[in-house]
Order: sequence, then C-alpha cells, then structure tokens
Amino acid sequence: MSETAIAYDERMGRWEPDAQGRLQQAAMELYLERGFEQTTVAEIARRAGLTERTFFRYFVDKREVLFLGADGLKTLLVEATTAAPATTTPIEAIGAAIVAAGAMLQDRAEFSHLRQTVINANPSLQERELIKLASLATALAAALRERGVSEPAASLCAEAGVAVFRNGFERWHQASAKDDLPTLMQDSLDQLRAVTAATPSHG
Amino acid sequence: MSETAIAYDERMGRWEPDAQGRLQQAAMELYLERGFEQTTVAEIARRAGLTERTFFRYFVDKREVLFLGADGLKTLLVEATTAAPATTTPIEAIGAAIVAAGAMLQDRAEFSHLRQTVINANPSLQERELIKLASLATALAAALRERGVSEPAASLCAEAGVAVFRNGFERWHQASAKDDLPTLMQDSLDQLRAVTAATPSHG
Repeated sequence: MSETAIAYDERMGRWEPDAQGRLQQAAMELYLERGFEQTTVAEIARRAGLTERTFFRYFVDKREVLFLGADGLKTLLVEATTAAPATTTPIEAIGAAIVAAGAMLQDRAEFSHLRQTVINANPSLQERELIKLASLATALAAALRERGVSEPAASLCAEAGVAVFRNGFERWHQASAKDDLPTLMQDSLDQLRAVTAATPSHG
Repeated sequence: MSETAIAYDERMGRWEPDAQGRLQQAAMELYLERGFEQTTVAEIARRAGLTERTFFRYFVDKREVLFLGADGLKTLLVEATTAAPATTTPIEAIGAAIVAAGAMLQDRAEFSHLRQTVINANPSLQERELIKLASLATALAAALRERGVSEPAASLCAEAGVAVFRNGFERWHQASAKDDLPTLMQDSLDQLRAVTAATPSHG
C-alpha cells in the first residue's frame, strides 16, 4: 500500500518520492485530528504538499485510503487457505491463513492501529468494514470449496475464521501491552475451538 | 409484530382492526412489486386503505417494517441464552437459543421468506442486516458473560452462534423443499462444531 512510488506533483513542479505514502500519512493525521467526515481531499493534499489531482491518481475517494489494503489482505487470506497442504483440515487451513494475516498487519502496526481508531469513531466506516468482512467470509468459503469442503461446512468454517480474525485483531488493538498479533490470532482460534467443542459436564 | 391492534383511521373515519398487520402486508407487497427504494409511505398507506398518519403511528419509516421484528428476535435469543440451565456449556446455551429462534421464525414463515427476498434485492438493506447481526452478537456475548463465561470465549461463541443462525436461516430460505427451520439450525450448529473440532488425519 505504501510502495515507494514516484509521482510528478503539478503544484510543486517536481517529482515526489512515495506520494501515495505521504497522502496516506496526511489523511490518517487529519482523520484523527478532525474526524473522517470533516476532512476534505483538498486538505489531505495540502497537508501532504501535493495536489488533489495527485490524490486521485492513487485513491478513488477519501474512504479508499482506509480500505485499499483490505483487498491485499483478502488476497493473502485466500491464497494462504488455498496453499495449505491437502491433509490440513479446513479449520487449520483457515487458521494458518489468519496467523499469516496477523503477521502482515503487525508489519504495518502503526497504520493498522490508526486505521482501527478512525473506523471505531465513525459508524458509516464501521458499516463499510462489516461489508468487507462479509465479503471476506464469502471468498474464504469459496477457497474451502475449492479444497473439496462441502456446504454448509465451508461457509460455517469461513464465518468462524472471520470471527477469529476480528477477535484477535480487536484484542491486539485494545491491548496496552505490545502483544504479538499472530500469537493472539492463534489464541483466539484455539479458544473458539475449545468453546465450540465443550460438551456438558454431567456432575 | 402483527399483534391484533385496533387503530382509528382518519380517512376511513372508523376503527380498523390490525392496522399494523395490514400496513405490513401492503408494504411487503409493494417492496416485492416495485422494489424497496421505489415504494413510498403514501403508497403503502393507500394499499392498506389507511392514512400516512396511521403508518407513522406504528413505524418510524418504511425500513422499520422490515426490522421491527429483529428486536423481538434479539430479546428471545438473549433470554433463551440466559435461561439455559447452569450446567449447559456456552455453545449449547447459544444453540438452544438459536433453535428456539428458528421455531419463532418458522411460525411466521411467509413473512420471514418475503422479508429475506426484499433484503437480498437491496444492498442498503443488506448493510442494515449486517449491523443488526453484529449488534446481536454483542448482546449474546454479554449474556454469556452474565453466565460466567470469560472473554474472549464469550465473544467468539456469540459470533459462532450468529454465523450458525445466518447459515441455518439461509439454507431454509433457499431450500425449495419445506425443510424444518429448527432442525436446520441444529444441523448447522452440529456442522460448525464438527468442522472446527476436526484434527489432522495423519495417514
């Protein structure tokens, strides 16, 4: 998402290194300072020292600054699910993908935390996030069916995986200590499996 | 939702039995015929032989015709989770609640199917449904914490339960055969438990 790109800036009249990264940084600062709704693309471009035209070369709108990475995350999760060895059970294939996604999000920890703070402050962004997660579950269910998992097990396993992903991320985001995200993802998975497996204690 | 209420209708100049039920029926017919967005409250009232003022005595807006029952469903699910015997495991308490909710929705099968058809045809209603389901998971997690279940197990179990509820309902809605909804809910629960419990086959 913050690839080192070179962009020619019309206002500054020179080529700018990593224009996308600077626009993203400026946008996040403004979303946190003023709120997402109150921030305009013109303000983001000004803060980044670039033009609106440059902004629209990288982002469709100001919301995409927050959701562009979600597509990369979905691709990683689907590919990791598909790549798991054939002998791996469905929940373990999904689990391995979630732990890998945790590592990716931890590599961009600062952005991941800021993004969640911005989203938590805005109901319309929360709705957008729910839609993205529903679409993620649909994609993971399709990846499981490709592995030969039948319905409804594929959809149920994918939904459970998304619940684990959300839960692990939320615990990481809320924790004051610097916990390890892949470890929290694995722990949430283990806890889901324990709580759904529990049989009654007859005694 | 379709309680037998008596309402005085200003246009007809007489008391109308079950005005709410007639408004709901008229609204569903119009949503299916013309689409949700294209239907106005004035048209709903006209179709029901009532006034707009009567409509607004029962519903805040035309969307509430579809979502008023969701609060009753949430209450039923939370109360059933709370009412499960103390020895019941978290997933079984949630499971019993989901099966009870399935029985309630089957009692109003025609409305339940029509409602889902209307929602499936409209992205903004689907978003609303996702928000309602997220709020349902939050309420079920709180009910489990009241039972002494700790976090993150409570949230994970609640999310898994909502996934089962959606899955069971979707299977029932899509089935051409007249399957029994409580049975499908139980089957989806069993399949979730089986797929998340599965350990690798070493052979």
